[in-house]
Amino acid sequence: MKAFLAEAEQAAHYPAHFLVNGVMAENPEKPERIARLRAGAEAAGCVFAVPREHGIEPIAAVHTAAYLVFLERAHERWARIEGASEAVTPNIHPPHRNAGYPDSVVAQAGFHMSDASCPIGAETWQSALWSAWSAVEAADAVLGGERQAYALCRPPGHHAGPDLAGGFCYLNNAAIAARRLQGRFARIAILDVDLHHGNGTQDIFYPDQSVFTVSIHADPARFYPFFWGYAGERGEGAGIGFNLNLPLTRGAGDEAFLAALATAIAAVEAFAPDALVIALGLDAFEGDPFAGLAVTTPGYGRIARAIGERLGVPAVLVQEGGYLCDALSDNLAAFLTGFAEARGR
Amino acid sequence: MKAFLAEAEQAAHYPAHFLVNGVMAENPEKPERIARLRAGAEAAGCVFAVPREHGIEPIAAVHTAAYLVFLERAHERWARIEGASEAVTPNIHPPHRNAGYPDSVVAQAGFHMSDASCPIGAETWQSALWSAWSAVEAADAVLGGERQAYALCRPPGHHAGPDLAGGFCYLNNAAIAARRLQGRFARIAILDVDLHHGNGTQDIFYPDQSVFTVSIHADPARFYPFFWGYAGERGEGAGIGFNLNLPLTRGAGDEAFLAALATAIAAVEAFAPDALVIALGLDAFEGDPFAGLAVTTPGYGRIARAIGERLGVPAVLVQEGGYLCDALSDNLAAFLTGFAEARGR
Repeated sequence: MKAFLAEAEQAAHYPAHFLVNGVMAENPEKPERIARLRAGAEAAGCVFAVPREHGIEPIAAVHTAAYLVFLERAHERWARIEGASEAVTPNIHPPHRNAGYPDSVVAQAGFHMSDASCPIGAETWQSALWSAWSAVEAADAVLGGERQAYALCRPPGHHAGPDLAGGFCYLNNAAIAARRLQGRFARIAILDVDLHHGNGTQDIFYPDQSVFTVSIHADPARFYPFFWGYAGERGEGAGIGFNLNLPLTRGAGDEAFLAALATAIAAVEAFAPDALVIALGLDAFEGDPFAGLAVTTPGYGRIARAIGERLGVPAVLVQEGGYLCDALSDNLAAFLTGFAEARGR
Repeated sequence: MKAFLAEAEQAAHYPAHFLVNGVMAENPEKPERIARLRAGAEAAGCVFAVPREHGIEPIAAVHTAAYLVFLERAHERWARIEGASEAVTPNIHPPHRNAGYPDSVVAQAGFHMSDASCPIGAETWQSALWSAWSAVEAADAVLGGERQAYALCRPPGHHAGPDLAGGFCYLNNAAIAARRLQGRFARIAILDVDLHHGNGTQDIFYPDQSVFTVSIHADPARFYPFFWGYAGERGEGAGIGFNLNLPLTRGAGDEAFLAALATAIAAVEAFAPDALVIALGLDAFEGDPFAGLAVTTPGYGRIARAIGERLGVPAVLVQEGGYLCDALSDNLAAFLTGFAEARGR
């Protein structure tokens, strides 16, 4: 399977901390994830190439101009504030977005960042850009005739909304890939198997009937992202019926995940997409530091085969979460191997 | 002038930190403010009494039930989270409020707290409650025939909205006093002279034509609360025309403040209120740690006289901001003395 990564550029972003339950904790979205994921993909037969630069156009198909300008310039503007932290960190958040767009970078940080887990350091914009370009390149490979391609996107993307960073995410790589695929394929399904609900992806396509978004994740009632990911969220306007959330009880393992996946796959089949994007988080693993669900390493093989056996349309696999633990490489290898095998390579 | 304060109860709240420009800094809204403010009020002839308990009813006239339950219970619920900080501190903030009300205290913190400057410790609810009761008691004194009364409200209130804490504020004491006064007086004007825009007060009365809200403050374009306080914000629905913001350039002194005040007073006179609430922040002082404006100590006397000479209706003075500096007592004394003298005691 072709795979894409700009390793040095995507590793440059290094978020030091994030605020969790009032405590500044070490941020688990570390650059070291890249080497582990790359090793896993290579063990599954992936051959990596560096993506080309694709400019802002494919990204602006998903995100607002104000947000992109903010992301690009925020660190430089923030550095001019006396006594400020190294990385842009939000403080004040408007409870509504109808009060006008603020001028100051402090206020813009609160406007564009829903939590304190996505600090913007000197290297963040470039890393996010190359991560998105990896997704674009994988989409282009599929547009060029590949049956499937893998984008090692880091930083991840599925919590990023049209104008909002959050949950370690800045640019929504899966959404960017989906829009890119729409250059040729009209109907896209995005299947998100990350531990956390893909709230950014849901938000981007909520009114859109051309992109069917499905997410399997830990029940948000007591888990990030808390505000979204409930079964009742089905879309809005023309998009009603084109979003499906399948929350799982904390601690659920392979069988529960596979049962939800069967529902997800049936819904995707009913939608009859022309192409598929898999938002491939690996943090539902039983040994992941987030400890939300209990999928096993063989379980990732079963999940991938279940998808691959039933959904044969061209597919872009976009890396989402999955944090440092002994099995991270193996989990990705199990998924990519199972997926390719089920689809006959 | 009669004055109200539950000193021990209102001093118990001790916010240790707040997040400012990404750095955890010492919180300037310290209990030590109380003694300084009390000394200033006593120097101006105030005689303090302890307020009675007034229950939740006068507070629920301003704040939502969900918010009040959150404030009362949040610390106890937060303490059950393993590894959490001592005080409730928000992390994830919903960009809209139309996604349903979350169950978890972590999410409720983000829903009900617009910034990280208003941590909820073990004593916060009781301090906020007694601070609000001081305002209720001062309103009751005026309802009982006093021409004016002073409530030493701490924690302050004017950034707190119907269901939102922020900027060191939990319960909007000035708004609570205004609603209490409406038991007898139909038309209330709230004149906010704090350095910061009274965004919570504005929000509470934005659609309300019975309460005219006026705020003089540092231009929010580069100053807290950033999102609100602009001249264009005039109210909504029936309340259009009943909110007036008078932002001042950073560093403005007595003359600029008095010029804005003349505009404010003329607008209040045109509204013809039956009673007045003064949201009495003293942080526009030239020596205040926030360093936003440059009002002098004699300036506070002039400001108070300007108000007192023109607005003779019954008045409740509610303490807002004003932080530790040598002149804090003197500034309050200058204001209260000037106000009482101008109104013939």
